Amino acid sequence: MHVDLLIEQVRMFNSYTKKFIKGNVAVLDGRILYMGDRGQETFEAAEIVKGEDRYLLPGLIDIHLHIESTMVTPATFSYGLIRNGVTTIVPEPHEIANVFGLAGVKEMLRASEECVADMFYAVPSSVPATSLETAGGSIEIADLDELLQTERIACLGEIMNYVDIISSSDSKTNHILEHIRSHYPDLIIEGHVPKLLDLDLHRVIYAGVDSDHTHQTIEGMEARINAGMFIEIQEKSMTDEVMNYLIEHDVSEHFCFVTDDVMADSFQRRGHLNHLVRKAIGMGMDAEKAIYASTFTPARRMRMHDRGAIAPGKIADFLLVSDLQSMIMDQVYKKGQKVYDIHEAYLPKPSKHSFPEHYYTSVKLPILTEQDFAVTVQAADSRYSCRVMIVQDGSTFTKEHHGEVEIRDNQLCWEESPYGLIATFERYGKNGNRGYGLIGGDTIKRGAIATTYSHDNHNLLVVGHNPRDMMLAANEVIRNQGGFCVVDNGTVLANLHLPVGGILTEEPLEQTAAEVHQLTQAMESLGYRHYNPIMSISTHSLPVSPALKITDLGLIDVNEGKVVSLLIQG
Amino acid sequence: MHVDLLIEQVRMFNSYTKKFIKGNVAVLDGRILYMGDRGQETFEAAEIVKGEDRYLLPGLIDIHLHIESTMVTPATFSYGLIRNGVTTIVPEPHEIANVFGLAGVKEMLRASEECVADMFYAVPSSVPATSLETAGGSIEIADLDELLQTERIACLGEIMNYVDIISSSDSKTNHILEHIRSHYPDLIIEGHVPKLLDLDLHRVIYAGVDSDHTHQTIEGMEARINAGMFIEIQEKSMTDEVMNYLIEHDVSEHFCFVTDDVMADSFQRRGHLNHLVRKAIGMGMDAEKAIYASTFTPARRMRMHDRGAIAPGKIADFLLVSDLQSMIMDQVYKKGQKVYDIHEAYLPKPSKHSFPEHYYTSVKLPILTEQDFAVTVQAADSRYSCRVMIVQDGSTFTKEHHGEVEIRDNQLCWEESPYGLIATFERYGKNGNRGYGLIGGDTIKRGAIATTYSHDNHNLLVVGHNPRDMMLAANEVIRNQGGFCVVDNGTVLANLHLPVGGILTEEPLEQTAAEVHQLTQAMESLGYRHYNPIMSISTHSLPVSPALKITDLGLIDVNEGKVVSLLIQG
Repeated sequence: MHVDLLIEQVRMFNSYTKKFIKGNVAVLDGRILYMGDRGQETFEAAEIVKGEDRYLLPGLIDIHLHIESTMVTPATFSYGLIRNGVTTIVPEPHEIANVFGLAGVKEMLRASEECVADMFYAVPSSVPATSLETAGGSIEIADLDELLQTERIACLGEIMNYVDIISSSDSKTNHILEHIRSHYPDLIIEGHVPKLLDLDLHRVIYAGVDSDHTHQTIEGMEARINAGMFIEIQEKSMTDEVMNYLIEHDVSEHFCFVTDDVMADSFQRRGHLNHLVRKAIGMGMDAEKAIYASTFTPARRMRMHDRGAIAPGKIADFLLVSDLQSMIMDQVYKKGQKVYDIHEAYLPKPSKHSFPEHYYTSVKLPILTEQDFAVTVQAADSRYSCRVMIVQDGSTFTKEHHGEVEIRDNQLCWEESPYGLIATFERYGKNGNRGYGLIGGDTIKRGAIATTYSHDNHNLLVVGHNPRDMMLAANEVIRNQGGFCVVDNGTVLANLHLPVGGILTEEPLEQTAAEVHQLTQAMESLGYRHYNPIMSISTHSLPVSPALKITDLGLIDVNEGKVVSLLIQG
Repeated sequence: MHVDLLIEQVRMFNSYTKKFIKGNVAVLDGRILYMGDRGQETFEAAEIVKGEDRYLLPGLIDIHLHIESTMVTPATFSYGLIRNGVTTIVPEPHEIANVFGLAGVKEMLRASEECVADMFYAVPSSVPATSLETAGGSIEIADLDELLQTERIACLGEIMNYVDIISSSDSKTNHILEHIRSHYPDLIIEGHVPKLLDLDLHRVIYAGVDSDHTHQTIEGMEARINAGMFIEIQEKSMTDEVMNYLIEHDVSEHFCFVTDDVMADSFQRRGHLNHLVRKAIGMGMDAEKAIYASTFTPARRMRMHDRGAIAPGKIADFLLVSDLQSMIMDQVYKKGQKVYDIHEAYLPKPSKHSFPEHYYTSVKLPILTEQDFAVTVQAADSRYSCRVMIVQDGSTFTKEHHGEVEIRDNQLCWEESPYGLIATFERYGKNGNRGYGLIGGDTIKRGAIATTYSHDNHNLLVVGHNPRDMMLAANEVIRNQGGFCVVDNGTVLANLHLPVGGILTEEPLEQTAAEVHQLTQAMESLGYRHYNPIMSISTHSLPVSPALKITDLGLIDVNEGKVVSLLIQG
């Protein structure tokens, strides 16, 4: 009988037995028709590929990630995915939604249409995540309704404000969940429930949220699995303790691997979901279990019944791999077509999608002066105890420190203090809000950094030790309509342009990776001490991440959920 | 915090760990809120139930069955289900669809609305299953479209004519499957693929059919599981060999138990899906595995994500059981409400549903005479080799035997032969077709049986050894507008009235069970030798069940898929 493609002599992964089985695979009309011993005596194949005993795996599936974390467009992201064997993703466009609201999400959907990798979206559920910031856009219930009419929606994206579910029945989060439960009772709702246990955990699940991708502990994983939650393991959860638990226990049905946030340089250097599979195998997990958790369980979690396995009827997304330990792709097939070959040139396709013009003029701020980094305080001349945001290496959480700083002539003399200044400028032309604070710890020790890549509001955030460098860095970013700039002593050390909404670039992945690397080095050269300085600085403005953060409304005590003053009163 | 119900101190089945865990369960608004150690110190419960260390199981879920096999209405069926702990079913109204078409299916849906057990329907896909019979109704693609708009549809019911999928791209079956794949790509399609293996099996799965509930062998099960098929184990598949395979292998994710067809007397005497669980445990399966296969996997197969487990957010359908070996229900809860208690009176609720008037006048046949059982053949007087349907104990398959019978004056002298006569009369007023054949083997040796409960066409089927008894039995059934009648030597031995469409009764389950038992005994008293004589006779007219069957078009060679003559030509 006629088939389009016959792959001979492979060790194919069988998702149902979780074993590799030797045999051939026949493809017809983009779907797998047959896997087994039959070959050319049965099939007249338009194309025959010699498997040479290599591994044939289902295309990898990543169900929790943010494309914006890589600061590239969907087309560039797809280009990077495919060569790493990732054929389907469920991105949540949380960042662009904070910049452009519903329109931003729809633009990402449009931008994804031409991509080789399938992108089914998670609708951002928590935009803005709190009322303690001014963002460019918001996602309201009517927006959810509009998006949920789209076929390419896989789920409701992570409910960030889980505290709201438990503490206040009248919260926006609960209104959204009630609306979803009554109107879309079968919709998958993704969760973000760090550390939650016992009754609180059960109440969140009862509200419909039944996955978690935050950092896991053994106790937390057991509680989640027992209660029917699905666990999405990201790299930071891949501790020895967690991995040993996953390796030793019969929990394959209950977890998958996800990337969440991958920086462009890491994407370029280490890969994507295949990196997590490689790492899991390196940590002692059976390849079968690691592959299952990157193909079958993520597909099932997202109810994508047409993929995640090499079996009759499934979409012919598959990978040929010589060595499971390296997880380097020899060839990648999408819907039965070869889309990557390690032996052939692999170039990004020219993108037909273009973002609307106003996406390139989203930073609505005038050029700043040094005076914009002077902090005026109505207080008598004296030394005052002030709140200081202490940056910690290894974490996106900050600590609140109290330090004494002089006030003279109603000016905070921060330059004379041991601390730097952190300032944020509302940049959507909505209210001109500004917030100021003091910063210390593992951040830069001199010079300045400015960025619009500041979660979730993506206002202009500036950290520095003198007004001139801060002004220079800020103005560079404003002129570029978004990005990062690092300045030391009047010299620009690094510049990353993110002109699309102030958060994305249209440059190729390789170039962005190099620039991100350079940016990181520049930040480190000024004394930043963090495994990921970009992630560190871009979460200084995230008011759902403890403890002291800053937005255009001022300093935020995240645990208390409120704005607090720079000066500690009484 | 307030809850509606607190069940204290139970051993609850955890579907995620497949273990029993001691603790308490709290219910709010019909759903489980919490399971764990917390009790009255945390919850103010409107009602408290002492678990006394009994087992608390999810309500049983049966995803492949035909209510009509029990010959009762949905209300009566639900009454029987609940006391056996079955809280959700997916019935396929294949028989009523053969009688009334789309209207019959919609009537079953309506009749189910008032039922305590949740009934989500399988849309009959194969009505009629072949073109070799005249049925009362048919289900066409437009009917499927209409039914699939209904919320209470779970899947496309079993594709019976699997041979059509492989052999003819232009078959009705393939047209339906293509329509479903292109218009409802996520719809579950249930299968019926006895003995299929290798490429044929894979082609059926490729066509979208990915479950099988037919009799299983080890080789067949392995082939099905490897290829991604879900296996539904009915009682006849519960052989030692199959059960040992299921017990010894890690295949819990790939199978469930289903009842398919349960006679009213068996329902009354042995129970329903709980009987299969009891039997599985009795055959050595761990209770945990047997319960998982009757709750969690059937729910997941039907994508009923709101049930099948005791976990936060799931519908509070659960069972309290003292002894897992007996699987006798102490109490049954549906959506948090107690609906059965072994210590309290349990009576059927008066049904508010009534079938349309014409459902009671569906047997459109005149009163018959003895002459209607004379077989006229245009052939010279002689002895002729004739096809004889040989009934086999232990099977619904018949064998074709060739025996010599005299023809005199163009009359088949069947009364003088060692065989009985089998006759079928089209009874929908469509064409007045009649079919005649000879019958032998393990059927009755004297007297007559008549029935309209003859799969799938439900025409009037009469088997007997003399025209008078046959006429009496047939006329009794015609006067009753459907049912069974057994006559011996002019005396009615048993009579089962099935006035709704000629296939269902509205009498209580207990009465129907007694009548079915009496009917079986009457058939046995005439020499019928079969473990289930009712199922045996009612499949004599089923033209998808090998080997020689009969319809109003005549004798059917099922393997050849065509009408054959009574006299063997040449």
